[in-house]
Amino acid sequence: MSTSTTVNGVALERHGATIDAVTNDPGLGRFQFRARNHWIDGGHSRTTIQGFYGAGHEDATRADPFVVDTDEPPILLGENRAPNAGEYALQALAACLVGTIVYHAAARGIALQGLECTVHGDLDVQGFLGLDSDIRPGYQQIDVAIAVTGDLDDDQLAELASLTRYSPVRDTVTNPVAVAIEVTRA
Amino acid sequence: MSTSTTVNGVALERHGATIDAVTNDPGLGRFQFRARNHWIDGGHSRTTIQGFYGAGHEDATRADPFVVDTDEPPILLGENRAPNAGEYALQALAACLVGTIVYHAAARGIALQGLECTVHGDLDVQGFLGLDSDIRPGYQQIDVAIAVTGDLDDDQLAELASLTRYSPVRDTVTNPVAVAIEVTRA
Repeated sequence: MSTSTTVNGVALERHGATIDAVTNDPGLGRFQFRARNHWIDGGHSRTTIQGFYGAGHEDATRADPFVVDTDEPPILLGENRAPNAGEYALQALAACLVGTIVYHAAARGIALQGLECTVHGDLDVQGFLGLDSDIRPGYQQIDVAIAVTGDLDDDQLAELASLTRYSPVRDTVTNPVAVAIEVTRA
Repeated sequence: MSTSTTVNGVALERHGATIDAVTNDPGLGRFQFRARNHWIDGGHSRTTIQGFYGAGHEDATRADPFVVDTDEPPILLGENRAPNAGEYALQALAACLVGTIVYHAAARGIALQGLECTVHGDLDVQGFLGLDSDIRPGYQQIDVAIAVTGDLDDDQLAELASLTRYSPVRDTVTNPVAVAIEVTRA
């Protein structure tokens, strides 16, 4: 008998099949994501995102690359052509938290009607400008407010909050990640 | 005498004026960036980015919000409508490294002709799926290759590499950031 159950837009049989596949062959869990940024002028740059490695092979499902522009607002000497990099970091965190809750809730049979995630990140540009070596360049604090719509009891609400521990971007921002940087002539 | 000098597309007088203003009144350095994500279905969500606080006031230069979609590829149960959150995190890092080098190089009078930044991030979805508590959900390692075009000597190339220490997103990814998450009913 073939069944097809979807919760929160997540196809549960496919989700279960993925878990079974990775459980049976843990090497399938290894993924490599990629982004390539090309400087245009001033604070304006353009990133292309297309291929990645995962589940044992190079993905070939994206016929065209995604194109994502970055710029700065005028006060940071840009022209507001696009969000800045710090805002994209917050967008990555927000989208990851939402996706993580949606997928894990689906696997637990928790149906959601709506999910909104607002992220605020505080930093001090004295760090970026190198004016005070005691001030870090990055975010000093990030505050996330997630508002859930659905028929949920208090235990389920607490469970949704707990599921955010599985978020890759939350972990990447919260805990140290080794970043190796090589600069060469083109 | 009014002068207008632009290096790497960065207006140096405005850059210098920013540094002077923040040096004279360090409170102007405080910024808060924001992103708001709205879940659509499955792995598909939409983020709006518009206002931010900085230099002592709410910014009002963006008449319309930027809209940034996120999705997953089919192997992660999405439909490739947009990059995924992990890829946006890499894009944020790449764009931030490029912008940081461009601005700080300009302030030092180092003219660049081109800059390409490729970022690879390795993770294991066993962490996301909760299959192995010893495997972190986030990136285990991020490798960045920056290729510079321009008339640069070896010392200048080394200096460009060193300037990446000022990158807000590099710092955010490399070092721990406190992320406070509150989940409530809408």
